Amino acid sequence: MSSAQSFQQAPHKLLVIPGPVECSDSILYANASPSVSHVSPAFISVFGDCLRMLRKVLYAEKTGQPFMIAGSGTLGWDQTAANLVEPGEECLVLNHGYFGDSFADCLETYGAKVTVLKAAIGGIVDEKELTKALKEKKFKLVTITHVDTSTGVLAPAARYAELIHQASPDTLIALDAVCAAGSEEIRFDDWGIDVVVTAPQKGLGVPPGLSLVMASKKALGVLNARKAPVSSYYVSWRRWLPIMEAYEAGQPKYFATPPVQLVTALNVGLKQILDDSPSLQDRFQIHKDVSKYVKDELEKMGCGFVPLSRDHSANGMTAARYPQGIKAADVLGPLAERDIVVAGGLHKDIASEYFRVGHMGVTAVDKSRGDVDKILKNVKEVLDKARAKQA
Amino acid sequence: MSSAQSFQQAPHKLLVIPGPVECSDSILYANASPSVSHVSPAFISVFGDCLRMLRKVLYAEKTGQPFMIAGSGTLGWDQTAANLVEPGEECLVLNHGYFGDSFADCLETYGAKVTVLKAAIGGIVDEKELTKALKEKKFKLVTITHVDTSTGVLAPAARYAELIHQASPDTLIALDAVCAAGSEEIRFDDWGIDVVVTAPQKGLGVPPGLSLVMASKKALGVLNARKAPVSSYYVSWRRWLPIMEAYEAGQPKYFATPPVQLVTALNVGLKQILDDSPSLQDRFQIHKDVSKYVKDELEKMGCGFVPLSRDHSANGMTAARYPQGIKAADVLGPLAERDIVVAGGLHKDIASEYFRVGHMGVTAVDKSRGDVDKILKNVKEVLDKARAKQA
Repeated sequence: MSSAQSFQQAPHKLLVIPGPVECSDSILYANASPSVSHVSPAFISVFGDCLRMLRKVLYAEKTGQPFMIAGSGTLGWDQTAANLVEPGEECLVLNHGYFGDSFADCLETYGAKVTVLKAAIGGIVDEKELTKALKEKKFKLVTITHVDTSTGVLAPAARYAELIHQASPDTLIALDAVCAAGSEEIRFDDWGIDVVVTAPQKGLGVPPGLSLVMASKKALGVLNARKAPVSSYYVSWRRWLPIMEAYEAGQPKYFATPPVQLVTALNVGLKQILDDSPSLQDRFQIHKDVSKYVKDELEKMGCGFVPLSRDHSANGMTAARYPQGIKAADVLGPLAERDIVVAGGLHKDIASEYFRVGHMGVTAVDKSRGDVDKILKNVKEVLDKARAKQA
Repeated sequence: MSSAQSFQQAPHKLLVIPGPVECSDSILYANASPSVSHVSPAFISVFGDCLRMLRKVLYAEKTGQPFMIAGSGTLGWDQTAANLVEPGEECLVLNHGYFGDSFADCLETYGAKVTVLKAAIGGIVDEKELTKALKEKKFKLVTITHVDTSTGVLAPAARYAELIHQASPDTLIALDAVCAAGSEEIRFDDWGIDVVVTAPQKGLGVPPGLSLVMASKKALGVLNARKAPVSSYYVSWRRWLPIMEAYEAGQPKYFATPPVQLVTALNVGLKQILDDSPSLQDRFQIHKDVSKYVKDELEKMGCGFVPLSRDHSANGMTAARYPQGIKAADVLGPLAERDIVVAGGLHKDIASEYFRVGHMGVTAVDKSRGDVDKILKNVKEVLDKARAKQA
């Protein structure tokens, strides 16, 4: 029999895109758990613990109701739109790239009237523009992409939330934290966030396949008070809330079969984040330190950055512009040949001008792996080689 | 390093509920694959092969367009309802238990007007009633639960499809095969089915977390011709079809991050079904033989069955009524103490009167495991013990 202690994942290229990311052996071993009944006492406890730990990771223990549903991170947008927005209601999207566009698309699909405040590429939405927009219209919901994976921009979520609460206390705030949870601090209760949308395969370091959502008491109150029926079956919180409550209370209840292995893997991943050293607070500091180190080193190699300011740069990923004269083909393929997988650009206007490196999960936190130095050493070598070829 | 050859899952209770089911070691090992990029050439090929193999397993190579999306099996109902039914359109649900009720709920959520033909518990919808209903109204869609997991009833799907085609050739036919694919023969092309909804964790023997759907050319034509916009974002085939086509063509394309490990596990599972002995045809025969054996033996022990006829009993599971004087508590707990997990009743009117045994995947097909005899031996012993206590 293989054991959690003896299991080692197969040799593979180092995966350092902005998600999915490298998983620890113990998380992958948990993903290979024997099948269990989704209503067995043992699994109910594993599931319930995931919900409790999600509250801790997001500092949501006062007001947060977690939902954990089989699906991609994208499904969290549907959960937000289908449950909280009624047809014809006004929503405001603070857009820092591709994922802002998509959240707006999703809201419109559910009948919302969407106003978009679009930052310049690499920039952030100006506070004054936000305040102005909030004065002009009453919005049911404002969405913030915490880290837009397409640009690596980190939105000042706490500050935006403060401004929204000041100008329009009833307005709900949804934070798309798919590329932020686990690598950026999120203070759900303190910031007064109403929905956090996330997924396991980025800062949480677990395989993809779950939509993880935290909803505030206020958000659930808005759901209760809505007039139009929820227009989706699978993402209806009215169907899922009793399930989540039952699992947390240690009781079986069925709506749709949860991905039992993946939930078991998430349980191990969340435990590693909460119980192992470093502490949650130290973890966020490590992410900041690693991010600074990566960005400083890339800068020395002649790279620029998509985010216009270090203050608004993600700590779990870096969107680096190629140095003068270097093309995508000089970097992406040569790195893959060296068994290092980074991602190309995603923002359509500048896709060929930059590449994206993820430094989330074990890659950033488990120094003994040496991932970060391996990435930087190889990026330097392929850049040097490309320059030598040109000379 | 652990290898596919050396990996063995942890010791565990034998899981023989009607899904999730036992997985082979090699499938679980695939579920512990290192993370890969969802747009890497290697993963694109794994994903594309899954789609091609799904067509083969469902005999859908002429007209089938597969969709593979992170989610529970339930999400397939949303896919069907959101893409194919416009608000106010008439649907007919052939109801053989709990899952028929739920499919009807889902259709109504998306605005359908639903007529339900409800069979007596354990019975099937009468052919004459179906023909009569088809004459009375023009239905956009008829749904058939192939195996209703709550009752173990196997619907005569081919015959129903024939009657529907005769009476109403334009009507779409959706087959809920969550508890059927892999253990019951489904002839998508030949029967003229328009949607098969399924999931990996039952007859396909793979961990849960994917919604697997096969749609006909006719169904995609209906989608193209629809007037109302698709009212859901995540389950919109308009968003997923280009993704599925790209993956099959070996090209990267992004809408939402697929669960890369689970897709890798499904790939191994489908290969085992298609390439290993027994052949697909032999596999269905084995399921019939195992099912007959299980039912014959349980009958000898004094059990009855929820399905009123052997002809309409599922081959991948058995819904067995407790013998006279025996209660759920005499069977479920004592079996669990013997490390055998079966399921209680699910149909609300008779939940306390029966139990459900799954004999899908490796439990039925891999005789070397001895699962079936282990189940039967232990059921006999707990029944004997309960009787002895009464005497």
